[in-house]
Amino acid sequence: MLHRVETPLSSLLRRRLPGYSLEAPFYTSQEIFDADMEAIFERHWIFVGVEPDVPEPGDTMTIDIGRNSVLIVRDDDNAVKAFHNVCRHRGARLVLEPKATVGNIVCRYHAWTYNTDGQLIHADHMGESFDPGCHGLKPVHLRSLEGLLFICLADEPPADFEDMAATMAPYLAPHDLRNCKVAYESDLIERGNWKLTMENNRECYHCAGNHPELTVPLFAYGFGFSPEQLDEQDREQAARYSCLVDDSSLEWEKEGIPSREIDHLDDRATGFRTQRLPLDGAGEAHTMDTKAACRKLLGKFTHARHGALSFWTQPNSWHHFMSDHVVTFAAIPLGPDRTLLRTKWLVHKDAVEGVDYDLENLTGVWTATNQQDGDLVAYCQQGATSPAYQIGPYSPYTEFLVEKFCNWYIGRMAAETGLVQP
Amino acid sequence: MLHRVETPLSSLLRRRLPGYSLEAPFYTSQEIFDADMEAIFERHWIFVGVEPDVPEPGDTMTIDIGRNSVLIVRDDDNAVKAFHNVCRHRGARLVLEPKATVGNIVCRYHAWTYNTDGQLIHADHMGESFDPGCHGLKPVHLRSLEGLLFICLADEPPADFEDMAATMAPYLAPHDLRNCKVAYESDLIERGNWKLTMENNRECYHCAGNHPELTVPLFAYGFGFSPEQLDEQDREQAARYSCLVDDSSLEWEKEGIPSREIDHLDDRATGFRTQRLPLDGAGEAHTMDTKAACRKLLGKFTHARHGALSFWTQPNSWHHFMSDHVVTFAAIPLGPDRTLLRTKWLVHKDAVEGVDYDLENLTGVWTATNQQDGDLVAYCQQGATSPAYQIGPYSPYTEFLVEKFCNWYIGRMAAETGLVQP
Amino acid sequence: MLHRVETPLSSLLRRRLPGYSLEAPFYTSQEIFDADMEAIFERHWIFVGVEPDVPEPGDTMTIDIGRNSVLIVRDDDNAVKAFHNVCRHRGARLVLEPKATVGNIVCRYHAWTYNTDGQLIHADHMGESFDPGCHGLKPVHLRSLEGLLFICLADEPPADFEDMAATMAPYLAPHDLRNCKVAYESDLIERGNWKLTMENNRECYHCAGNHPELTVPLFAYGFGFSPEQLDEQDREQAARYSCLVDDSSLEWEKEGIPSREIDHLDDRATGFRTQRLPLDGAGEAHTMDTKAACRKLLGKFTHARHGALSFWTQPNSWHHFMSDHVVTFAAIPLGPDRTLLRTKWLVHKDAVEGVDYDLENLTGVWTATNQQDGDLVAYCQQGATSPAYQIGPYSPYTEFLVEKFCNWYIGRMAAETGLVQP
Repeated sequence: MLHRVETPLSSLLRRRLPGYSLEAPFYTSQEIFDADMEAIFERHWIFVGVEPDVPEPGDTMTIDIGRNSVLIVRDDDNAVKAFHNVCRHRGARLVLEPKATVGNIVCRYHAWTYNTDGQLIHADHMGESFDPGCHGLKPVHLRSLEGLLFICLADEPPADFEDMAATMAPYLAPHDLRNCKVAYESDLIERGNWKLTMENNRECYHCAGNHPELTVPLFAYGFGFSPEQLDEQDREQAARYSCLVDDSSLEWEKEGIPSREIDHLDDRATGFRTQRLPLDGAGEAHTMDTKAACRKLLGKFTHARHGALSFWTQPNSWHHFMSDHVVTFAAIPLGPDRTLLRTKWLVHKDAVEGVDYDLENLTGVWTATNQQDGDLVAYCQQGATSPAYQIGPYSPYTEFLVEKFCNWYIGRMAAETGLVQP
Repeated sequence: MLHRVETPLSSLLRRRLPGYSLEAPFYTSQEIFDADMEAIFERHWIFVGVEPDVPEPGDTMTIDIGRNSVLIVRDDDNAVKAFHNVCRHRGARLVLEPKATVGNIVCRYHAWTYNTDGQLIHADHMGESFDPGCHGLKPVHLRSLEGLLFICLADEPPADFEDMAATMAPYLAPHDLRNCKVAYESDLIERGNWKLTMENNRECYHCAGNHPELTVPLFAYGFGFSPEQLDEQDREQAARYSCLVDDSSLEWEKEGIPSREIDHLDDRATGFRTQRLPLDGAGEAHTMDTKAACRKLLGKFTHARHGALSFWTQPNSWHHFMSDHVVTFAAIPLGPDRTLLRTKWLVHKDAVEGVDYDLENLTGVWTATNQQDGDLVAYCQQGATSPAYQIGPYSPYTEFLVEKFCNWYIGRMAAETGLVQP
Repeated sequence: MLHRVETPLSSLLRRRLPGYSLEAPFYTSQEIFDADMEAIFERHWIFVGVEPDVPEPGDTMTIDIGRNSVLIVRDDDNAVKAFHNVCRHRGARLVLEPKATVGNIVCRYHAWTYNTDGQLIHADHMGESFDPGCHGLKPVHLRSLEGLLFICLADEPPADFEDMAATMAPYLAPHDLRNCKVAYESDLIERGNWKLTMENNRECYHCAGNHPELTVPLFAYGFGFSPEQLDEQDREQAARYSCLVDDSSLEWEKEGIPSREIDHLDDRATGFRTQRLPLDGAGEAHTMDTKAACRKLLGKFTHARHGALSFWTQPNSWHHFMSDHVVTFAAIPLGPDRTLLRTKWLVHKDAVEGVDYDLENLTGVWTATNQQDGDLVAYCQQGATSPAYQIGPYSPYTEFLVEKFCNWYIGRMAAETGLVQP
């Protein structure tokens, strides 16, 4: 390319303009995508699934994070573990199925056999000098936060996961995710960079114009607004909403259900944010009639009006915990312009489809919303490929969490590439 | 790759051998493709469509030139304008449809709203310090040459467009393209480099063996021949054809229809060539029976025997103007080995399909011819990928316009890359 | 990519650990794939097909080796020749069909015409100074080893082909391949690097667990085993197999059928190996009932119990010659992670389908086996893309021929890249 000089990543990181969207190469460049995978997805805690994905000993789940295939298995002592899904002999992929149940882990190629702890317990014809003890499966760090499974591919994962876990456990525990089952799971491939998927998730400025289903249970004032644009009547409604949030929190706290906002999105390696907010209408769940989707409630809940607890984590997940069901979301980058969005709907493990819940009612709002968001992400990706793309300003009132996502991302990349001391 | 050194573009440009096809990297290399897009397609006048594509105020057309998406819109004052199709907020693609009609241009993402002059007229929640005046759509240069639309993505387009326009207006005006309608439009993706598409268009040496439909209205001697190969009878026929060309020109000029050849294919930035030539048989149009395809003639034509006016422009178009219809062709590069050929057939705006013209008859010759040419382009692309490919000699009698295309291309690349003073 | 430094090919070659699988970039890197194509596939003898592919004068076959399209043609003197399939005029691909019959070779574009010796015999409009003698097709080296066709794209092919030919001719001649016909041909695209395809072919450690059809005619002890793993009964069976191999060889040699192992897999440029081994059961062929698939035997064979002669060549072929039919295999790299496996089943040219042989019976074992192997290759390719992939140890008893393939490959790459003197 004639006289153009590619801007190196370090310059792009240094010159990032706060309050504005990222420069185009962050969305389009293969080199920066590779750097993202290495610095973000191979060195931070990544949300990959839930304990109910592997409910019984011997149950496995595989998930690809970039070039890594990770095998998650519940071992015979009921502990969930993770390994690299690569045979130590000729390197064959071991478990092919997204979910399976195994006794041992046997490679199809030459029948090398590993137990669920990853130890090599059988290999033919290797001779007497061969040491099986040196050829076990390579482990991957795994944590379960009240049933939410996070892995880290680094040798030394960020230590602050334990802080997040300690903070979040009381918020999540009432929903008793470990005693849920996955009622439905969907994979949507969005035609955009993973950061566009995340940015889209971190604001609701776009909701009114794009999400007719999702906005049914949401309050219009719940996601920020420009005070200058309000007239007298708007201001009254906004004030009423503010009171409702406070009143609901007080009420829930009396029941022992934490709900106050905690925001560490951009001040630590394992960034996160949480808040329980009231819902409009019946106030029970993300459904078209805002009523609970499942008759059997979660955990020890005795009534369904607990709004929705949202839990956002950097770099790749968000979750909505309601009294009757949970929806989890994992964004998994596939390429500079492709991202897998994996969504799981969980209900009480004893709930019966057709009796306690209707699948279409349970999944309808987020199935529609995901599709709408996927389209928006694609439009932004198309725009970012244009030489005419220019960074644009974020709304200070409605896009402050997008800004925090970008802050976190830029900060982590700078730290991991040695631009700043971590 | 072992010991091979990639030849840099500057060396390839410098050592080009006149009279021979280009070296293989000009057809196969991603780097040279990128340079082509930057030096040729982002800095020269590119034919993109016709005014009848956007006949009414608010009508839009989008076209992608490499990584650029360009939005063409007829504004409320009936002027045709072009903008980059990118929202100034988060960079979303604004208009998705190839053709649409809008009041204002509204971004789907957060409803930022631009008028048809590109000004931002509405954006919610941006706060008091936000200046909409700094966030209008970015303009793209656009010219209409008697209804043919050319854009230039450079800040300072080549100035010699105005010379071409002044020269060509008298040739094109009689056909009154602005009062035509697009009767049919086809997109063909040719599996070859855009320069192979153009080279194929610039000679008819291949016509006899490949275009049974197109050669019906063409004279065998109209596109060059080797005089040594002619026998006595051939020579007589060639002489007769030469007289016919002269006689036709004189006759047309009496009617005020310019027809003499003008050739500036390789001596300026905005290269072009034109000539009106007689047609064989009924001599009216590029149809299988060589008769006019549309009963309603264009402009002020009162009879149909005006042959075909051809208008070729560098780098990417050719056009055939007949008394009853016009066919326009735009070659749009998609990749080193993929080119979009967009063809439009235009008739008088008041002509009625099924009454004044039959669509199959109107489009038959060029639909077949395009497909045949696309195949030939693909064979050349396949050949150019072989390490055994070697530049071959052009026929001095039948491929001199291919040579001029190459001269123009090499010259422009050399000028734009600073090898020679422009 | 942050701090990672790509290891250059020369370092990877130098540090190869004997007895272990290759490092991941040998299977995944585009750069090493390009180097493979240049150093291995453009400079060594490559098996491409058989004389019965072009049985009559004027018969042609095309085959793509990387970016090269090669045209194989039987000329009017019954000699098989090879040319680059590229017109010397504008570079068009000449013959498109995988197999065809021609009088002359005529380019579709401008009708340049070559005879089957590659000479340009006709080109219109080129003028008097044009010399057709300088514009003939570019030749490619070709050898027929008893009907097996090998080409070499280098200017100076490895000279040791003649040694291999002299050694192998007596082994192959009894099967009289030139008087066979291709009864069936299949193309399978394996989703893996070509070296994984070859490595898979060079061991039968994986056979017991993956090839239920192929193992019917094979002896369990025929492909190596770890002596420490044998109990008394195993040892007896292994000894009996060893005697059978010796006895069979003696018997076949009395008939003038050479059968002793010859192994030059890793000590020369044109590496090869051969051995005739007895088959289990009826001992006649690679079929499900181990009986001959074709009633009409090959050459001068009067009975079918001659086991199977295997002939392996570096870098890309293996062949099984039986008394009644021959199966040939060519691995053609398509990309770092894609390989074409082309398999041909040959029977006597006078054998009649449905009378002398049943196509499903003839092709069943290897059709199933190829598919199984293709899957295994894909699993290894998937594994090699993981950053967790680590070279693993080869079994000294069952994977020694894989080791030899790797030795040959590393040695040839080192020689061709100048790391060691060839």
